[in-house]
Amino acid sequence: MARTTGSHSDITGPRIRETALRLFAAEGYAAVSMRKIAAEVGVQAGALYNYTPDKQSLLFDLMRGHMDDLLAARADAGQGGTPTQRLQEFTRFHITYHEDRPHEIFIAYMELRNLTPENFEVIEALRGRYEDELSGILQDGVASGEFTLIDPRIATRAIISMLNGVTTWYRRGGRLSLAEVEAIYWDMVRKAVGA
Amino acid sequence: MARTTGSHSDITGPRIRETALRLFAAEGYAAVSMRKIAAEVGVQAGALYNYTPDKQSLLFDLMRGHMDDLLAARADAGQGGTPTQRLQEFTRFHITYHEDRPHEIFIAYMELRNLTPENFEVIEALRGRYEDELSGILQDGVASGEFTLIDPRIATRAIISMLNGVTTWYRRGGRLSLAEVEAIYWDMVRKAVGA
Repeated sequence: MARTTGSHSDITGPRIRETALRLFAAEGYAAVSMRKIAAEVGVQAGALYNYTPDKQSLLFDLMRGHMDDLLAARADAGQGGTPTQRLQEFTRFHITYHEDRPHEIFIAYMELRNLTPENFEVIEALRGRYEDELSGILQDGVASGEFTLIDPRIATRAIISMLNGVTTWYRRGGRLSLAEVEAIYWDMVRKAVGA
Repeated sequence: MARTTGSHSDITGPRIRETALRLFAAEGYAAVSMRKIAAEVGVQAGALYNYTPDKQSLLFDLMRGHMDDLLAARADAGQGGTPTQRLQEFTRFHITYHEDRPHEIFIAYMELRNLTPENFEVIEALRGRYEDELSGILQDGVASGEFTLIDPRIATRAIISMLNGVTTWYRRGGRLSLAEVEAIYWDMVRKAVGA
């Protein structure tokens, strides 16, 4: 994405991204105009086009940014140990990372339909890299005899769908702490893979 | 929803519903106008308003219709046996029922944000009735000692999230038959609940 340099756009860029993310999540990509984003940010539409060439680029940048951040955070996370330990770490990481990013996860799935084919391919490849990490853990566990799975690739999708669901209902300050939620999901994930 | 009677609206009604469902799923509720739906159906906008008072009613009717159909189909399904047998039946039922309804499941989650508070409450109550069926099975299984679960209510959400994920990737004619997918998911669900 083309960016102008200097302090003005350094401040405006994050505000544009935050506003676009919030509006896309609340109303849907197709219903939100560049003019509306500019008005919410408090800039002229022209200033928005200094930051991003068009709405498609803005959506793509948000989705790619989310996947890049996720992969970078994942790379920093502890990944040693047995397949069971690595699966526990992955489960905890996925829940914690997404817990305060419901907009990002909502858009990451919902607005795939609004990406151009070229942009869709890029996002799918990044998502594939993340899913491959979990698939690798599951395959290692099957190879070591720790896990019993009919199909590690399908199990990857099943586990990620299960964990993504947390963002649809979990609210801080509710009945359960995040640590309790992680423990409940880890208990189910561990048993589901036969560990 | 108010409907006019007679053969004309008998034909037009299902076409309006099918078209609205497809357009809402493809573009999002907020981006689709009544005029656009009418044009796709091939009627004047006025004819659409003979069928439904407004777009909110149309969305609500689609979502309520989906939940009513789901609950009716569920009531017809076999529900006897042990908790383990009932859980297997529920797993199979959920995957089979939703497999050829990706639009409905997509909208059922995604467009909750676009319902009025009163309509949201109705849909949430229907969804609650469906989830209560699974929760009841899980609670019975814990009571009988067949299942080991930390929190049956959270397990309900986790299992439904996992099973809903099937619609995001499964395509007929691919590597796996629906029966194989059901077997893979049942293996994971069964183990996840400790059965």
